[in-house]
Amino acid sequence: MCDACVIDTVKNRMLSRRSFFRAAAAGAATVAAASSGALSPALAQAPTKATDLTHELYEEFPTFFGEQQFWREQKFNYKEHKFNLFELRVNEHTGTHLDAPLHFSEDGTSVAEIPVSDLVVPLAVIDIREKAAANADAQLTPDDIKAWIAANGELPERACVALLSGWDKHLGTDKFRNADGEGKMHFPGFHVEAVQYLAENSSAVGIAVDTLSLDYGISPDFATHYSWLASGHWGLEAAANLDQLPARGATLVVGAPKVRGGTGGPTRVIALA
Amino acid sequence: MCDACVIDTVKNRMLSRRSFFRAAAAGAATVAAASSGALSPALAQAPTKATDLTHELYEEFPTFFGEQQFWREQKFNYKEHKFNLFELRVNEHTGTHLDAPLHFSEDGTSVAEIPVSDLVVPLAVIDIREKAAANADAQLTPDDIKAWIAANGELPERACVALLSGWDKHLGTDKFRNADGEGKMHFPGFHVEAVQYLAENSSAVGIAVDTLSLDYGISPDFATHYSWLASGHWGLEAAANLDQLPARGATLVVGAPKVRGGTGGPTRVIALA
Repeated sequence: MCDACVIDTVKNRMLSRRSFFRAAAAGAATVAAASSGALSPALAQAPTKATDLTHELYEEFPTFFGEQQFWREQKFNYKEHKFNLFELRVNEHTGTHLDAPLHFSEDGTSVAEIPVSDLVVPLAVIDIREKAAANADAQLTPDDIKAWIAANGELPERACVALLSGWDKHLGTDKFRNADGEGKMHFPGFHVEAVQYLAENSSAVGIAVDTLSLDYGISPDFATHYSWLASGHWGLEAAANLDQLPARGATLVVGAPKVRGGTGGPTRVIALA
Repeated sequence: MCDACVIDTVKNRMLSRRSFFRAAAAGAATVAAASSGALSPALAQAPTKATDLTHELYEEFPTFFGEQQFWREQKFNYKEHKFNLFELRVNEHTGTHLDAPLHFSEDGTSVAEIPVSDLVVPLAVIDIREKAAANADAQLTPDDIKAWIAANGELPERACVALLSGWDKHLGTDKFRNADGEGKMHFPGFHVEAVQYLAENSSAVGIAVDTLSLDYGISPDFATHYSWLASGHWGLEAAANLDQLPARGATLVVGAPKVRGGTGGPTRVIALA
């Protein structure tokens, strides 16, 4: 799936950007994650409602690679043993899940090293449902971010910026992966210029998509993954129910697995608003 | 490990209690988990700090059964493939993890069916470190709950009640499992009468321990597991850093895996205060 030449081009382009060095330096400072941390001042409001942004995980959950990535074996059952217990086998990047910087970098921050204060962050929801319904290859661009800011004010400090394409509603149908006759997928994602814009012009720590990838489905080069993750940020894929949240004002709690050295993993994501 | 006779005795005792039927009826009403829900009014305060109550998960993390329960295989590595990815294999009840009602009941609520509003709850921390330091077989009793109420007021609505024994500080040493020459473990837990007291006298939805089991280590019968889980409540095991929280006032966000039909699983637990 990886074209090494294309990837090298992307990486060279990325490495030439000042923002990469700035963000990489910030990332390096966070390798030793503290067990507690102060929250963004933007969170200083009392939540009254919890919204689950997590899809159920099951054996047939669609995957980027198209092959099964989750299995279970029942080790104990109530009838025989008086309790139930399963052993699970799962590819880290399955279901609603986090991408840690280490997923697309040689020695970036692992999922266990992300500071806890970067897992409880204000959420900005950018609604591109209209253009996504018209074009499955739509991308969230810098103009979409600027339009959100014009309508909602500056992005909150250390935010997660979420792409609402409405694609979570296609789960359970072929349209979720939306593969064409050649096997190329068609679903929305973040344009590489959008994450470059966020890295250069905001303090955002994460992005979220309701599709199977941070990049749009037909991306040939994972340009958005490389630019955003390798510069010390996290990404959340296959989020659900973003349409239930306000454009501004919710707080995201990212229940990422704390696997030592992990590159991400199935994640329980709950929004408080 | 299960003595069927002892377990039947426990179950018969439990089934005779009115509280079981009351709680089981309440549990049945929550089988279809909504994607959002109102939070307990006790949460109506603005958090300023996040505390991670999760231990890192790694291959040698100590287990109740004493055998390894977590493995990984690197499927892609950056040097060769330009990205990193692991496949994980894990027993659901490993590391800091949740026990769903289904773990100790024939057809109880699975981990994916717990309402999201029962995963964002006020936390009551009951400190029994003094008696746990003096006696590894110490249990949290109804008297400890009454003493907490006398000092802190009534338990918040739909709370998680946590046992702070200080045992998380023993992780990485033999004292965490604290097995004797016969292999019997010695660490604190909830007395079965304490969870019966909570079921009858409070609206608590969950309990948490900083040890490997809801029951104390030498329990011969999982009495606390059966009483609490089979009556429609959840339990959190191997929590960390409870000593960093106030006795009252923190909000627990339980990032349980949303595995369809799961009996629990490794969980990211973050307290907001």
